[in-house]
Amino acid sequence: MAKIAILGAGIMATALTFPLTENGHEVHLVGTHLDQDIIASIQKDGTHPNLGLKVNDGVTAYQLEDADEAFEGADVAMSGVNSFGVHFAGKHLSQLVKPGMRVLSITKGMEADEDGTLHMLPDVLKTYFTPELRDSVSWSAIVGPSIAGELAVHHDTCVVFCGEDQAALDYLAGLFRTDYYHVWTSTDFLGHEIGACMKNIYAFAAGLGQGLTIKEGKQDDRYIRYNYNAAVFAQGQKELRQFMQLLGGVPETSDGLGGVGDMFVTSMGGRNVRAGEFVGQGRPFSEVRDSLMKGVTLEGVNAIRVVGGALKPLTERGVVKPQDFPLCRYLYSIIEEDAPLDMPWSKFFGGEK
Amino acid sequence: MAKIAILGAGIMATALTFPLTENGHEVHLVGTHLDQDIIASIQKDGTHPNLGLKVNDGVTAYQLEDADEAFEGADVAMSGVNSFGVHFAGKHLSQLVKPGMRVLSITKGMEADEDGTLHMLPDVLKTYFTPELRDSVSWSAIVGPSIAGELAVHHDTCVVFCGEDQAALDYLAGLFRTDYYHVWTSTDFLGHEIGACMKNIYAFAAGLGQGLTIKEGKQDDRYIRYNYNAAVFAQGQKELRQFMQLLGGVPETSDGLGGVGDMFVTSMGGRNVRAGEFVGQGRPFSEVRDSLMKGVTLEGVNAIRVVGGALKPLTERGVVKPQDFPLCRYLYSIIEEDAPLDMPWSKFFGGEK
Repeated sequence: MAKIAILGAGIMATALTFPLTENGHEVHLVGTHLDQDIIASIQKDGTHPNLGLKVNDGVTAYQLEDADEAFEGADVAMSGVNSFGVHFAGKHLSQLVKPGMRVLSITKGMEADEDGTLHMLPDVLKTYFTPELRDSVSWSAIVGPSIAGELAVHHDTCVVFCGEDQAALDYLAGLFRTDYYHVWTSTDFLGHEIGACMKNIYAFAAGLGQGLTIKEGKQDDRYIRYNYNAAVFAQGQKELRQFMQLLGGVPETSDGLGGVGDMFVTSMGGRNVRAGEFVGQGRPFSEVRDSLMKGVTLEGVNAIRVVGGALKPLTERGVVKPQDFPLCRYLYSIIEEDAPLDMPWSKFFGGEK
Repeated sequence: MAKIAILGAGIMATALTFPLTENGHEVHLVGTHLDQDIIASIQKDGTHPNLGLKVNDGVTAYQLEDADEAFEGADVAMSGVNSFGVHFAGKHLSQLVKPGMRVLSITKGMEADEDGTLHMLPDVLKTYFTPELRDSVSWSAIVGPSIAGELAVHHDTCVVFCGEDQAALDYLAGLFRTDYYHVWTSTDFLGHEIGACMKNIYAFAAGLGQGLTIKEGKQDDRYIRYNYNAAVFAQGQKELRQFMQLLGGVPETSDGLGGVGDMFVTSMGGRNVRAGEFVGQGRPFSEVRDSLMKGVTLEGVNAIRVVGGALKPLTERGVVKPQDFPLCRYLYSIIEEDAPLDMPWSKFFGGEK
């Protein structure tokens, strides 16, 4: 029996408590300052309000002020927040994590320096740790196509635990594996984190075609826009693969669960796709941001801003060619310059020829 | 102005007449013995009954007995039938095609020798030609994510013209390119044909998860089975890529329009997906074949039979390892042995580890 402490009580962090508790492990779920109502609800009757489900016995919910108690003696310390919470998580975990713990993150995304150098979020978490503490723990992350609610209702889900240390990955995979939660491991930490970030970029693109169809009033027609979406998906996958190569990940990571698999599931719906749909309907992105979806967490938009923004200095420095990443560059112009829907097809796949 | 003669008047062959005629070319559409009613309808008032649309002026429809007249003086001779019609097309085209014509095929699939050696269908077409005629024409094919009806209503569609001869590809692409029909070219003929065949295999697999959800009565629930479908898609893409390498295609072809793009669009629906859904609901495949979908053309099932069947001799000969292609092998056991739904997750991605 192991003890797992999770900082963050969102739907994904909470969904992961199902395989853990069903394997007999003890889970301490700690809400952030944004999760107070969630924690109160779980403490009251076990219900996670956003997930719409009761958590298992074996999950104990804690408010943030009780985090020290929750993390005391944990074998595994998890960052369960989304990309917007990475600095919050870094600050808190650097105090809560003790030497020898296994750190496991579901916080996905990237940050960029001014010169376009990109960093995966587990590396951002690390910056909050003293060098001694950082080196005394193992660093791993969960990636792959996983809608939280589907995992929570025990539908088959296949993921990758990626990290630096194979022994830690084997240990962690053993804690989580069930007959519905299937876990592979990989030491291509960077490649998998790039995939986990980039898939959200292309999820936004996945909504554009449906938006155009809605604008034309043809969403219930016999023929919609799967050809359109498939071409966008294929170009997205090409760019994802190229990014992995560029940043030092293993290109093959773009093939499997952490690449096309995660892109596929993320393209099937969700907030990023919906934001893309609005733009496809003809709404300027600034209107989506400031009005139509005001206050909604859009990790894909943030990823476009970071990665698309980094392309400019990376191009100026000669790291990437001006004709590379045409879809990501176009999405950036939507987000930052309110560009209208005008898919640059002829630039895709190395240029129409 | 060029003259294009097409053997076969199905929905895809007919959809391709839109970009051609809008570029000012003359198209002769020749029905097979199965297309008599379609040709009669187009001759009467221009309507293709299955497509539900009128063809453009510039398309002339011919019954099969008038094929000689239709192909007389053509610049381009197209095989517009599906995989089941490849021998029919080979027999007829070998008589209709004249030296110097460009042959362009949309007939996709593979055939296997007893020892598991696989042949793409353009090569099967060639066997009907005399060596002199075969060498006097160019051979090309259209692949990529293209639902016929979406092309016919002028929705953006991105495809690859693949073949042996770049000059012929450039000529053909020039005939078809419009502002909605975007054409790339590739001399990886084999890789693209493998993708065009294999994507139908994994389309069948794409229906299984939804079938299971229907069986459980949960298809209208909040949480369905995108995680499941994404993992199947990712494993399918891995196998498609490995097949390309095995048979001598360019592995990168599995990344773009001819790989993940075509798999994506084919997974979104259609007859192969529906057949998989029935199996997911618990129906033995023999019942799907003999009753529920009796008489329905299932190119995916045929591809599973051919490619899955070839895996046995290929494994015995040591060309592939027993642990390779676990999804394709499992689909074969569904088709040939009425295996029930029991996805071999732990064998995917090189084995769960």
